[in-house]
Amino acid sequence: MFDPASLKYDASGLIPAIAQDADSGEVLMMAWMNAESVARTLKTGRVTYWSRSRQAFWVKGESSGHVQELVELRVDCDRDCLLVLVRQTGPACHTNRRSCFYTAVREGAEVEIMEPVE
Amino acid sequence: MFDPASLKYDASGLIPAIAQDADSGEVLMMAWMNAESVARTLKTGRVTYWSRSRQAFWVKGESSGHVQELVELRVDCDRDCLLVLVRQTGPACHTNRRSCFYTAVREGAEVEIMEPVE
Repeated sequence: MFDPASLKYDASGLIPAIAQDADSGEVLMMAWMNAESVARTLKTGRVTYWSRSRQAFWVKGESSGHVQELVELRVDCDRDCLLVLVRQTGPACHTNRRSCFYTAVREGAEVEIMEPVE
Repeated sequence: MFDPASLKYDASGLIPAIAQDADSGEVLMMAWMNAESVARTLKTGRVTYWSRSRQAFWVKGESSGHVQELVELRVDCDRDCLLVLVRQTGPACHTNRRSCFYTAVREGAEVEIMEPVE
């Protein structure tokens, strides 16, 4: 059996979780989970982070409707990072862009490569 | 101009960097960079992390030959996470697997979904 307590958490009890679109492969965002977020994500099928700013569970999309349905949770070789394959409803980013990684560094300058969704 | 000092680093001066295969979209690994690693990565085109265990710069593949050629660096909306698009030579993982995320949680159990490369 998989036990969330078997993962390696940082001094704050958190582990980074990378959300990737299960179909397109696009990396959508990175946020943090604690052991209970991991357990809730697996149990409910709704990706649930730990908000460091609010110090509270963060069921992604709970207020915005931009939920992440869990497709598969993966653990890395060091057990200190998670890859979460998801089906993303709407944009993942709070700026209304599909992904949080919408700024590229090209020839030494920052370029916005993604528009907010209508 | 892009200034690595404009990113948000944690208390140890580090920022997580997600390496993604620029062609396949596969998420290969997650490691950490400091401002100087970011600068070196951009300058040399060789992805350069900061090894927390060795407390030293880590030019990926320097000893193994499994280098990562930088295709594009991207910054997230909060400026506290990087996405590094790379051309990966050989396996990215020290276990000789293509990706570090070779363990999936399926029906409550851990399953290895990737073989080491020959």
